[in-house]
Amino acid sequence: MRLLHALSPSSIASSTLRAHFASGKAPHRGPIATSSTRRWLLLSGTTGAIRHLSVAKPRILVARELTEDAMAALEKETRVDFIRTGIREVCPKDTMIRYLKESAPISGIILTLTEKVDQEILDAAGPSLKAISTMSVGYEHIPTPLLKERSIRLGYTPDVLTDAVAEIAVGLVLAACRKFRDAEEELRAGKWGAWNPTWMAGMGLTGKTVGIVGLGSCGVEVARRLVPFKVGRFVYQGTRPHADKERTLTPPGATFYSSLDEMLPLCDVLVITCALTPQTQGIINYGRLKLLPKGAVVVNVARGGIVVQPDLVRVVREGHLGGVGLDVMTPEPLPMDDELLRLPGMTLLPHLGSATRETREEMSQITINNAVNGVLGEPMPAELKL
Amino acid sequence: MRLLHALSPSSIASSTLRAHFASGKAPHRGPIATSSTRRWLLLSGTTGAIRHLSVAKPRILVARELTEDAMAALEKETRVDFIRTGIREVCPKDTMIRYLKESAPISGIILTLTEKVDQEILDAAGPSLKAISTMSVGYEHIPTPLLKERSIRLGYTPDVLTDAVAEIAVGLVLAACRKFRDAEEELRAGKWGAWNPTWMAGMGLTGKTVGIVGLGSCGVEVARRLVPFKVGRFVYQGTRPHADKERTLTPPGATFYSSLDEMLPLCDVLVITCALTPQTQGIINYGRLKLLPKGAVVVNVARGGIVVQPDLVRVVREGHLGGVGLDVMTPEPLPMDDELLRLPGMTLLPHLGSATRETREEMSQITINNAVNGVLGEPMPAELKL
Repeated sequence: MRLLHALSPSSIASSTLRAHFASGKAPHRGPIATSSTRRWLLLSGTTGAIRHLSVAKPRILVARELTEDAMAALEKETRVDFIRTGIREVCPKDTMIRYLKESAPISGIILTLTEKVDQEILDAAGPSLKAISTMSVGYEHIPTPLLKERSIRLGYTPDVLTDAVAEIAVGLVLAACRKFRDAEEELRAGKWGAWNPTWMAGMGLTGKTVGIVGLGSCGVEVARRLVPFKVGRFVYQGTRPHADKERTLTPPGATFYSSLDEMLPLCDVLVITCALTPQTQGIINYGRLKLLPKGAVVVNVARGGIVVQPDLVRVVREGHLGGVGLDVMTPEPLPMDDELLRLPGMTLLPHLGSATRETREEMSQITINNAVNGVLGEPMPAELKL
Repeated sequence: MRLLHALSPSSIASSTLRAHFASGKAPHRGPIATSSTRRWLLLSGTTGAIRHLSVAKPRILVARELTEDAMAALEKETRVDFIRTGIREVCPKDTMIRYLKESAPISGIILTLTEKVDQEILDAAGPSLKAISTMSVGYEHIPTPLLKERSIRLGYTPDVLTDAVAEIAVGLVLAACRKFRDAEEELRAGKWGAWNPTWMAGMGLTGKTVGIVGLGSCGVEVARRLVPFKVGRFVYQGTRPHADKERTLTPPGATFYSSLDEMLPLCDVLVITCALTPQTQGIINYGRLKLLPKGAVVVNVARGGIVVQPDLVRVVREGHLGGVGLDVMTPEPLPMDDELLRLPGMTLLPHLGSATRETREEMSQITINNAVNGVLGEPMPAELKL
């Protein structure tokens, strides 16, 4: 254990370990290495020969801990060595750089969307770096052109969270249509009085028109889940029609609109599920929100940037919408002085899209497999073509 | 208008009108009569002949106002006269009795579940009373044996709220599985930190077993809506199997259990949709809740009395459940010192089951049609066989 100590980047002790201890878990001293690494670490000080032998195994830096089950699975992987920071919160950039230098050569990095990769990090890793594996469907924290330039492969976790996001979307549609938030606030404030035919009466989905912005893998899963609610019809907007997906929504049927402006006046419920791109940035603005029928419900499970948030606030203040459900907003986490927190009829979730235990385990496992296969030069379960 | 004043029960003025004015609507003076009644009221003081002529039209007392659209529709009904109290909150018993006596003979009464009918009210109405029409699916506020004895018909509003209740049930399942309430509280308390693989990670529905207590018209609608969430299978408990309803849930299929004790250990999610009867009173007790797998989610949209509420509180305190969603509880409204309000993981709604504008309008319309047809001796849209 003494050598493990010697190898730990000294200056990370304070911040990293503080964060780690704060998590309430058993303390780790220095880098956490799995059995094979540890064997090497303990021996490396004694003979160069053994060191050389062990160096042949590619090393993967685990910048922050994934789920517990996934971390347990690391122990069984014998083809690579894992260098674990043991960090359960965000891994600071300087910590990552120190690990990359002091545990060099590193062939792969496992991280999440909270660890932003830049040129400095890539330089610290040096030419040994073969793959980065992120436990996320997004990769806005990864400089893909730099990776391409250096022939570094990128693994991510697409698709696996579609079901989980669709659940959140339908949950938000129902919560917003049926006034869950406002009703529960009234109940908890002692304002639940005798039965009344119109108090907290919301919008039923039967016969309504549901608009989907972006009928991608997530959008179609949302729509499929809404079919048995006796939705009147689906309309969707995007770059092109999806005949195959439309078929899975018949009955009641789905109609493609290339123009948001034409589609919005039809939508009793609008669900935003498209990717955030330069083309979709801010497309849901004041004018477009006002095109929705009065009392319409808006749900966003995609990215906050697709909606011009001050415009949304203004339209809600004007009383134009029947309810709003947001799993994504700008920025995240939402500051405590944000206008969104002072509006009625808002259900706000802290980006729970993929937050199921099952999905997070699956994402962790794919992330590990991406990293291992990435450094070994094998096909990744989910590799982004750069 | 002077005669209208003279006819109004004097002592109701204070409480009734106060309640009415408090609603923020335009004030009414005395009983609100539709055009035909008003014509009679204005003339009744002048000649006995005209009085006799108008009395031939059956009169229906509208104990409290239903929805605005439904009230507007009353004006178009020419076969009966409506006597409206104008009350928008609960109609007190003494007020109803005074109206029944002073506007006699009354052939029908329109009321909601907040107006409890008893022998005194029936006596005040006297033998002219032909029908009572309640805007509710339940009729626990109506003494059905007394009605049968006096050959008074009873109209109610079954079935119409099935879709609305199923929406609430699925909304509560998703909210409870995915921790909507706790997550939103964290967000609003400024506790939303950096992304974390396990924070607020809930239960996904994919592959899970959903148990339904009572596969009636509501239960099957809940299950149908959960099918596209890729539920693994449905199990249900009740007095008998429903082969026809099972077929509509295949795939994934539904299995009948006569014993709750056998079914509960299988249920990742339990949804209570059965009627409250002496047989179902308190069937979900401590022992049964502990039969559920640890982390299971419980949703009740039926009646609070089916669950032994202190037992539910105890099981939640023990950390056995993953989440609870209640649209019904004991008593309603829930007192502010109730234990339920101090538990984590609870989504509590103020009995919103039928609370959609569409359902409430439909219920109002059926209630009016039941009353009109009831007093005219015609078939009611929805009559309870006594």
